[in-house]
Amino acid sequence: MGKKESGGDFKKEKMKRSFASDNNAGVSPEIIEAIRNANKGDFLAYGDDPYTKHAEEKFKEVFGHNVKAFFVATGTGANVLSLSALLKPFQSVISAESAHINTDECGAPEKFTGSKILTVKTPDGKLTPELIEPILHTSHGEHQVVPKVVSITEATELGTVYTVEEIRKLTDFAHKKGLFVHMDGARIANAAAHLGCNFIDITGKAGVDILSFGGTKNGMLLGEAVVFFRPELAENFKFIRKQGGQLLSKMRFISAQFLAYFENDLWRRNALNANQMAKLLESKVKSCKKLEILFPVESNALFVKLPKDKIEALQEKSFFYVWDEISGVVRWMTNFLTTEKDVEEFAGSVFEVLGC
Amino acid sequence: MGKKESGGDFKKEKMKRSFASDNNAGVSPEIIEAIRNANKGDFLAYGDDPYTKHAEEKFKEVFGHNVKAFFVATGTGANVLSLSALLKPFQSVISAESAHINTDECGAPEKFTGSKILTVKTPDGKLTPELIEPILHTSHGEHQVVPKVVSITEATELGTVYTVEEIRKLTDFAHKKGLFVHMDGARIANAAAHLGCNFIDITGKAGVDILSFGGTKNGMLLGEAVVFFRPELAENFKFIRKQGGQLLSKMRFISAQFLAYFENDLWRRNALNANQMAKLLESKVKSCKKLEILFPVESNALFVKLPKDKIEALQEKSFFYVWDEISGVVRWMTNFLTTEKDVEEFAGSVFEVLGC
Amino acid sequence: MGKKESGGDFKKEKMKRSFASDNNAGVSPEIIEAIRNANKGDFLAYGDDPYTKHAEEKFKEVFGHNVKAFFVATGTGANVLSLSALLKPFQSVISAESAHINTDECGAPEKFTGSKILTVKTPDGKLTPELIEPILHTSHGEHQVVPKVVSITEATELGTVYTVEEIRKLTDFAHKKGLFVHMDGARIANAAAHLGCNFIDITGKAGVDILSFGGTKNGMLLGEAVVFFRPELAENFKFIRKQGGQLLSKMRFISAQFLAYFENDLWRRNALNANQMAKLLESKVKSCKKLEILFPVESNALFVKLPKDKIEALQEKSFFYVWDEISGVVRWMTNFLTTEKDVEEFAGSVFEVLGC
Amino acid sequence: MGKKESGGDFKKEKMKRSFASDNNAGVSPEIIEAIRNANKGDFLAYGDDPYTKHAEEKFKEVFGHNVKAFFVATGTGANVLSLSALLKPFQSVISAESAHINTDECGAPEKFTGSKILTVKTPDGKLTPELIEPILHTSHGEHQVVPKVVSITEATELGTVYTVEEIRKLTDFAHKKGLFVHMDGARIANAAAHLGCNFIDITGKAGVDILSFGGTKNGMLLGEAVVFFRPELAENFKFIRKQGGQLLSKMRFISAQFLAYFENDLWRRNALNANQMAKLLESKVKSCKKLEILFPVESNALFVKLPKDKIEALQEKSFFYVWDEISGVVRWMTNFLTTEKDVEEFAGSVFEVLGC
Repeated sequence: MGKKESGGDFKKEKMKRSFASDNNAGVSPEIIEAIRNANKGDFLAYGDDPYTKHAEEKFKEVFGHNVKAFFVATGTGANVLSLSALLKPFQSVISAESAHINTDECGAPEKFTGSKILTVKTPDGKLTPELIEPILHTSHGEHQVVPKVVSITEATELGTVYTVEEIRKLTDFAHKKGLFVHMDGARIANAAAHLGCNFIDITGKAGVDILSFGGTKNGMLLGEAVVFFRPELAENFKFIRKQGGQLLSKMRFISAQFLAYFENDLWRRNALNANQMAKLLESKVKSCKKLEILFPVESNALFVKLPKDKIEALQEKSFFYVWDEISGVVRWMTNFLTTEKDVEEFAGSVFEVLGC
Repeated sequence: MGKKESGGDFKKEKMKRSFASDNNAGVSPEIIEAIRNANKGDFLAYGDDPYTKHAEEKFKEVFGHNVKAFFVATGTGANVLSLSALLKPFQSVISAESAHINTDECGAPEKFTGSKILTVKTPDGKLTPELIEPILHTSHGEHQVVPKVVSITEATELGTVYTVEEIRKLTDFAHKKGLFVHMDGARIANAAAHLGCNFIDITGKAGVDILSFGGTKNGMLLGEAVVFFRPELAENFKFIRKQGGQLLSKMRFISAQFLAYFENDLWRRNALNANQMAKLLESKVKSCKKLEILFPVESNALFVKLPKDKIEALQEKSFFYVWDEISGVVRWMTNFLTTEKDVEEFAGSVFEVLGC
Repeated sequence: MGKKESGGDFKKEKMKRSFASDNNAGVSPEIIEAIRNANKGDFLAYGDDPYTKHAEEKFKEVFGHNVKAFFVATGTGANVLSLSALLKPFQSVISAESAHINTDECGAPEKFTGSKILTVKTPDGKLTPELIEPILHTSHGEHQVVPKVVSITEATELGTVYTVEEIRKLTDFAHKKGLFVHMDGARIANAAAHLGCNFIDITGKAGVDILSFGGTKNGMLLGEAVVFFRPELAENFKFIRKQGGQLLSKMRFISAQFLAYFENDLWRRNALNANQMAKLLESKVKSCKKLEILFPVESNALFVKLPKDKIEALQEKSFFYVWDEISGVVRWMTNFLTTEKDVEEFAGSVFEVLGC
Repeated sequence: MGKKESGGDFKKEKMKRSFASDNNAGVSPEIIEAIRNANKGDFLAYGDDPYTKHAEEKFKEVFGHNVKAFFVATGTGANVLSLSALLKPFQSVISAESAHINTDECGAPEKFTGSKILTVKTPDGKLTPELIEPILHTSHGEHQVVPKVVSITEATELGTVYTVEEIRKLTDFAHKKGLFVHMDGARIANAAAHLGCNFIDITGKAGVDILSFGGTKNGMLLGEAVVFFRPELAENFKFIRKQGGQLLSKMRFISAQFLAYFENDLWRRNALNANQMAKLLESKVKSCKKLEILFPVESNALFVKLPKDKIEALQEKSFFYVWDEISGVVRWMTNFLTTEKDVEEFAGSVFEVLGC
């Protein structure tokens, strides 16, 4: 353009590749292009448009012809609305203590559903039937909330990934106990890429009842979906979504993104890159005796225990978040655009600051 | 492109210019361009990015240096979060019976705030001190909710516009009674364009305390803002927004839209076009004795009483919404892209179907 | 007693018979006696006691063998929990504008259910199918709340009484439209006494789905019941009651009151007295040209329009509540202990102050 | 009486003295007498009566002249309304994992306040600054709820009692961190009796900000109070109580009970008896090698680990609740009427069934 671009020019402020969070990355060019292409002519709002119809069909292709998919604005929105569809206020949801719904949604689930979250300590962010079992022993009748949903996150908030078998075991157990299974799939693409499977394999086929399907952290501009694998549970969801403030008027621009996201497996290419860069980072830094990598690196996050007095200096080189300030655990995340050079540079900073 | 565009090709399904709702239009090209330009490099998420900082500054320029602006995903989100910032659950908000918060948000305000809406019948969608006064006579003590907010919509849901003086009278009255004034500005651009004034003249300068500032209906892709004219009321708003599921991760793409929206008065050009086309439509059809235009056409909507047996035939020519099926009132809306030709065509259909 | 009674001696402060509200009266001696008799030995709490079992059986005798009754602490509690059992937050309840749930529960229904109340203006506090019909014309899809419950009050807040036929017409209409019918029976005893029928005739037999059955205003110390005429709706009610803070631990003392209340038709004797005294008061004052009795006196309340400048002087003689300070409407209520002498005295004050 | 008493005759069903819960006991005769005495004449409802005025004054005498006391129907009501007065929905309350608000109120706090409860594992039901400290390290900004209240229970749900010094240390810590301290005093009388102090010593003087003061478990029929030690926090409480469905119409009968409860230290005599009987039971059974008493017996509860295969047989002798079915922990509670003979009989059953 030669001069100031409309919308501001922040080139000089431009950050280096961030290892702070995968949503620090921008948007896949294919997604931007899809938005541009959708901007032709008038269409009915709120989802009564052909892009949305098409995208809803696409979700059936991807997740099974029985599913119903609804698009929403935010991941927190997807989670609280999913839970709302399953829970009455006196019922509760069981999650790992580290679950996003428990730690990072500012109490949105409790506020919106009125329900309690019963948390379980886990070694690696993953629930198991054995971990859940004790919580189901309730004997106080109406004085206690009634467990009704198990919520798991795939990939977990700690970067680990449930295998198909682990999910199956959990959903079998849950269903036997009369519980629904909700999956927070904010990073489900990273999980599927890691497992080398399709979305359906770790969701509907594995017994998941409802899914918060995230696109934003893996290259979309904005867009999450709530996917029902039991369509009868979706009966009132249009109203729940509207009352939850999550119904977008110019829906076609979300739908068009989803179409592009699934096209030519854009989602998998993006996620694979992020995952591979995380493994690369792991391989680069694991030799350093001054740090400790805490969980298996199975998606695009590393949780690393650092000497507490070095954290700030390293953050100055490249900002990232402290996960637990007491123990000195930090989180490093890669994204769909992270390059080998980015990783090398970052690993270099680590070695330099820590003096490995 | 010559072949199927990514994201689907719906050219054949493309609607004619819609008179159903202003959010049926697409997005201003300047907005799309701003989104594209913002897609360069990594930036911190959730608003800690230079685009958002810049846009927040821009809001101060536009609305006064004291204001605090927060960006959210939807208009319903903006309204319920605004009200949440002002209300305790036992307090109530007074609105026109025709207000969007009362009729078209699926009970989101009640659900999210726990508060009651006290409604007032109005002749034209506009509240006045005289209309509000009787509702303030409460004598049942703690048995009654406590009025705390007056919510007005500018332009109103009926297409009318409060003048600066009307707003001033209302805010003076409200403040004297210890009430806050909230403005639902989903179509504030149309109002300001109609009045030939700036946003600040009908908001902060006129005594409004908090504003839901809408961009989506006037050419943005997605983006609303909550603007506080008393910054002390904003103290907790970041938490309210997050808990409300309205915090967008890749915020920069909303902020960049707002920057483009204010640049070179894009908002005014867009709104003026919509308003002018509404006046044009009014002038074209008002001679027809078989219809009745119900309210002054001051923004981009016409409310028209039609012979009930003609509505369907006209909808088939060009879809629009029935506003009141009992009385046969329908709504026709223009948007920032409506052309004179569109209006002529639509008016032609009206004459043809009604046999004027 | 000769000396200070335990619990304080307020004989000198003792009010004259109040015409302000029926809950200003004390408690029937039979009720006090029942409480005393129930105070023998230990019993399980929260309703697992023989008094409660017995009382639940009694409700089946009175209301039909299919009903399920649950005891709660307050009338507002009974109403909001009833509505909670019927409504999802995006659904709405239709009531008269004058309904207690709309005007005198400080927004408890909205706060607790998250649902909206859609109000209808009525001439006399009574809903009819014709009055409700227009509200059911909704065409905005998920943008609008979904009517799901009609709530009527028997006797109404304006002292009028629905006949059996009126209720039947309403419930038939509601059921045809897919709506439940809730009855706020805070003064159902006065209605049944007026109609000379049994409780079942104006509830289950007339098609009512759920009832807030009030005892407190008619001689009980404290105690309301939620009565389900469709037992399947009661499935989760024990949890709703507990989560609503309405589960009383020493339940037997509530249950024992209900047993005494039904015994030998104590409820009817009490209600009849209140009703008769209201009619007597009406007959005494209606000749006075300076006041206007607004509604048919069918239970134990008179709504009377007074010269506004006389209200305070009359309140000083005997306190009562102003119903509408703008128009000068006041409410006078009789109770189960009101005597002819009380009425004569009060009517005398009216004549004296108004100068009839 | 010679014939059937009004309200039913359940003499034959009468339980032996229960060790299941202190609210299985009846009501102190002094309380019944106070209710009877309050039943004279008409008084304004909802607390505008001399009994309530008097009782409010009494609370000032007992808790300090600055306090404001409000009477409510249930303990759950008292707790959730207290928390509502202190919390915004995005703020959280910290409690012991074993706290009643967390385990036995069916999610009422989350439902009513919208807030999250952050729980802390404790060895004995008692929070300490050291246990709370780690929870206050929050670094996720608006993504996390904001701790605002520490809630402690005195005596705890595990039968232990905070000393004055322990409370002081906690409240100093909390206030330094900007947190309020709520005390759930469902069994505060047992704690004060154990410590040999007055209520004020473990509440206002020790830094507590707000108290749920329970009377029901210690000989009242029904009645709890919310006591504000910072009167400015009570500003809106009348509305919160009404909207919470906890405002009792014939309030005088609650107030009269409180007056009798404080008169001649009835509360202390009742609590002392319960406490002494618990100690007696402890002394009787502790020699038995087949059981293990888990916590110091400082109020009126024993938590005892039993051989799991003996629990049912012992319950058949005298019913009590299993506290943790996995580990075989049960709870035995004494009450204000428990006699030495009751304890001896129960201990006898224990020895017999366990074969000590």
